[in-house]
Amino acid sequence: MFLEINLESEIPIYTQIRNEIIKGIALGQLVEGDGLPSVRQMAIDMGINMHTINKGYNFLKQEGFLSIHRRKGVVVNGPDKYRYNAAFLEILTENLSPIIIEAYTRGVRTDTIERVIKKILLSVSVPVEGGDHD
Amino acid sequence: MFLEINLESEIPIYTQIRNEIIKGIALGQLVEGDGLPSVRQMAIDMGINMHTINKGYNFLKQEGFLSIHRRKGVVVNGPDKYRYNAAFLEILTENLSPIIIEAYTRGVRTDTIERVIKKILLSVSVPVEGGDHD
Repeated sequence: MFLEINLESEIPIYTQIRNEIIKGIALGQLVEGDGLPSVRQMAIDMGINMHTINKGYNFLKQEGFLSIHRRKGVVVNGPDKYRYNAAFLEILTENLSPIIIEAYTRGVRTDTIERVIKKILLSVSVPVEGGDHD
Repeated sequence: MFLEINLESEIPIYTQIRNEIIKGIALGQLVEGDGLPSVRQMAIDMGINMHTINKGYNFLKQEGFLSIHRRKGVVVNGPDKYRYNAAFLEILTENLSPIIIEAYTRGVRTDTIERVIKKILLSVSVPVEGGDHD
């Protein structure tokens, strides 16, 4: 498995599982139709409680990234299932606000924030200049 | 008190207290030397458990935003106490990564992300063009 989980982190493990799977999709390591291990198998592979895996999978299901089929198991959805909408942009604003306001309060300049974001996007292989990937 | 706390939110209340006080500093509503209510008083004012207030204050103390004096009580620090350093930029990158990667995966363009960030900075009164506020 490519999931990097840090058991020492303050970030809940189910959130880390969720974030790692989204990152896998961003990187193209997981594409539409790919199967993921069952909750039970993932729990065994990672040595993590089944409830934790289930919670992570359930968020990803609600958010459109995964489907959980009775027969096919856990399957990665296509982009149409998780494409952003206006509601997501509001959540994005809410999630970014405290982080950006703290950085500003600590004296981080806008261009430094933009540089950090470009570095993050580069880490999932988006060209620095372009925003058009769709 | 100007603290807006949402008891229904998934964000822990101590984190909301922390974020609201940092926002108060960003907005200039709280400046160096200003006193904040004691843990006990804040707990009474807000109808929130003392341990929760204490946890929020303690994070702000560790992060340099507040001092807790035996005599003077809870006091807002000056910018030199919470100015960012290289370690903060690493934490910033870590905190922004999952949010930015999710937005990218959902098809949000880089310029839309930058527009959201400018809107957030405008909400604490930073001119859209400038990054120099110090």
